[in-house]
Amino acid sequence: MASPVTPTPVLKDELDIVIPTIRNLDFLEMWRPFFQPYHLIIVQDGDPSKVIKVPHGFDYELYNRNDINRILGPKASCISFKDSACRCFGYMVSKKKYIFTIDDDCFVAKDPSGKDINALEQHIKNLLTPSTPFFFNTLYDPYREGTDFVRGYPFSLREGVPTAVSHGLWLNIPDYDAPTQLVKPLERNTRFVDAVLTVPKGTLFPMCGMNLAFDRELIGPAMYFGLMGDGQPIGRYDDMWAGWCMKVICDHLGLGVKTGLPYIWHSKASNPFVNLRKEYKGIYWQEELIPFFQAASLPKECTTVQSCYKELSKQVKAKLGKVDDYFNNLADAMLTWIEAWDELNPSAQLPNGK
Amino acid sequence: MASPVTPTPVLKDELDIVIPTIRNLDFLEMWRPFFQPYHLIIVQDGDPSKVIKVPHGFDYELYNRNDINRILGPKASCISFKDSACRCFGYMVSKKKYIFTIDDDCFVAKDPSGKDINALEQHIKNLLTPSTPFFFNTLYDPYREGTDFVRGYPFSLREGVPTAVSHGLWLNIPDYDAPTQLVKPLERNTRFVDAVLTVPKGTLFPMCGMNLAFDRELIGPAMYFGLMGDGQPIGRYDDMWAGWCMKVICDHLGLGVKTGLPYIWHSKASNPFVNLRKEYKGIYWQEELIPFFQAASLPKECTTVQSCYKELSKQVKAKLGKVDDYFNNLADAMLTWIEAWDELNPSAQLPNGK
Repeated sequence: MASPVTPTPVLKDELDIVIPTIRNLDFLEMWRPFFQPYHLIIVQDGDPSKVIKVPHGFDYELYNRNDINRILGPKASCISFKDSACRCFGYMVSKKKYIFTIDDDCFVAKDPSGKDINALEQHIKNLLTPSTPFFFNTLYDPYREGTDFVRGYPFSLREGVPTAVSHGLWLNIPDYDAPTQLVKPLERNTRFVDAVLTVPKGTLFPMCGMNLAFDRELIGPAMYFGLMGDGQPIGRYDDMWAGWCMKVICDHLGLGVKTGLPYIWHSKASNPFVNLRKEYKGIYWQEELIPFFQAASLPKECTTVQSCYKELSKQVKAKLGKVDDYFNNLADAMLTWIEAWDELNPSAQLPNGK
Repeated sequence: MASPVTPTPVLKDELDIVIPTIRNLDFLEMWRPFFQPYHLIIVQDGDPSKVIKVPHGFDYELYNRNDINRILGPKASCISFKDSACRCFGYMVSKKKYIFTIDDDCFVAKDPSGKDINALEQHIKNLLTPSTPFFFNTLYDPYREGTDFVRGYPFSLREGVPTAVSHGLWLNIPDYDAPTQLVKPLERNTRFVDAVLTVPKGTLFPMCGMNLAFDRELIGPAMYFGLMGDGQPIGRYDDMWAGWCMKVICDHLGLGVKTGLPYIWHSKASNPFVNLRKEYKGIYWQEELIPFFQAASLPKECTTVQSCYKELSKQVKAKLGKVDDYFNNLADAMLTWIEAWDELNPSAQLPNGK
């Protein structure tokens, strides 16, 4: 299974790979040439007595529900159970600057020339080059080799801003909602779009948690995946919620968000009937959520991710609490999350270095 | 030269191809399989006594400076001379619903499989499918075959809005400004990005006039290419100016703008030293123009493109007149353009059908 490629492991000591799972991590075999030099944080969901097998040779720490409860105490209530939203616990316990998170049904994709795609390397490139949220460049990422800013792009904007998030895509099974899955059960994503672009300021997008990297120091506390799964009225909106909160805060703080490359190979579609049960309230609620986030505005006194996030929690309670009581609980959990984050990351409470 | 392809000429009687030129139109030979069924409007720039040769078999009308002066009388002052900005005269005299405009140094590009790209057909696809300016779809154009809206995309936004403009790209010579041309004389665009996307609402972009299509009924009067070239302090900002005005108006009226496919093959770079002379004021001025257009807001009483454009002209005079007196002249020319447009298109003064 292992490919003969031996890439240079960039940022080896500054990046953790976070994987939420309920099963043995055989999928790591295919990623071995790319992931083995890195440290893994495995967040075991579901029954904590189950033993998760990790292929030999990987350096990892593993947390199950008992660990989460022990480490966070009563604050563990903010971490979802029986939902991949639990992955954000891994962001919180990491001590590294960068996080890459990937689902255990995602495999190495091939580029059009047939070469294995080193997804992690591309995410790192995305994160280490600036973003351009204030003006759209028609030749896409201007920092990529062989391209630049086109005629008419203001020179004052060509330095860009720091990139906080890199959102990768998926070949094979596209990330569709249950209704679309039901209507188009056979649709596969076969189009390799060779581009990375900045999501412009003021524009929201659906952030998928399957293949995602971010700068923990710049935006970590905003990457809370909400209350989903066990005991909650909703699932499959964990990454969406994080994406909308994160984007509003990045726009406010002048940070960049990129989407596009790298692709991973998403191997199998989840059950659309189960998904529909998890999603149906979200499908309805998102019609209220999007206008809320589009209109959300943070006061200029909010200069840290934490203070932005607490303010957003207030606005969630004030404006979404009337949509459903769930959002009151979610707003409280957002505050609990920040408290827990600050407890585990005491030095990160200073204003970020922007 | 002519390829054996015989595509179905979509919208044959509803689209004009506008070509500004100063030379014989031999480049049309390569486009013959794609363009021959369509009507051409050729706008001859420079010396009107020069005879422009058009390859046999094309259906065309040709206007030189004498024709423009005769048709518009004193209002001809709004049409630039010795600059490809003169092309917008062609938009005005067309009686069709759609316009495709292309430069005479642009040839048929090949897709990665080696097949000739029918640029016009792709523009028409772009224009006939909706745009999605209010929320970004991570798999790009959701109306394209084999793709859709991803999870988390609000269902209420999936109908999209009418598409007003389709902005195509260029392989080989990228559309760089003079400083970038000077710094990277050998850079060529070889990356075929297989995507079309909507430029989000509130986001400006550098619209290039080399390979551009639009719905004349929806947005025609906003496609004024300004005062450039002979007697003017600036050149090479004609398409940029049109793009910024157009985008502000599309955002206000709820119309969509797409960029990406199709590619054309841009054969030769213009002289960077000449370009620098034309551009240098623009490079400075655009630092004021972008904030102006980013902040521009149109009152809700403006429900037609014409009324939006007149209001924008007022704001140009009020806010940019102090940057340089040129913008006072430009603001006046914008009004002259609208008067001339309405004279030549008397039925188009009704509110658009949105």
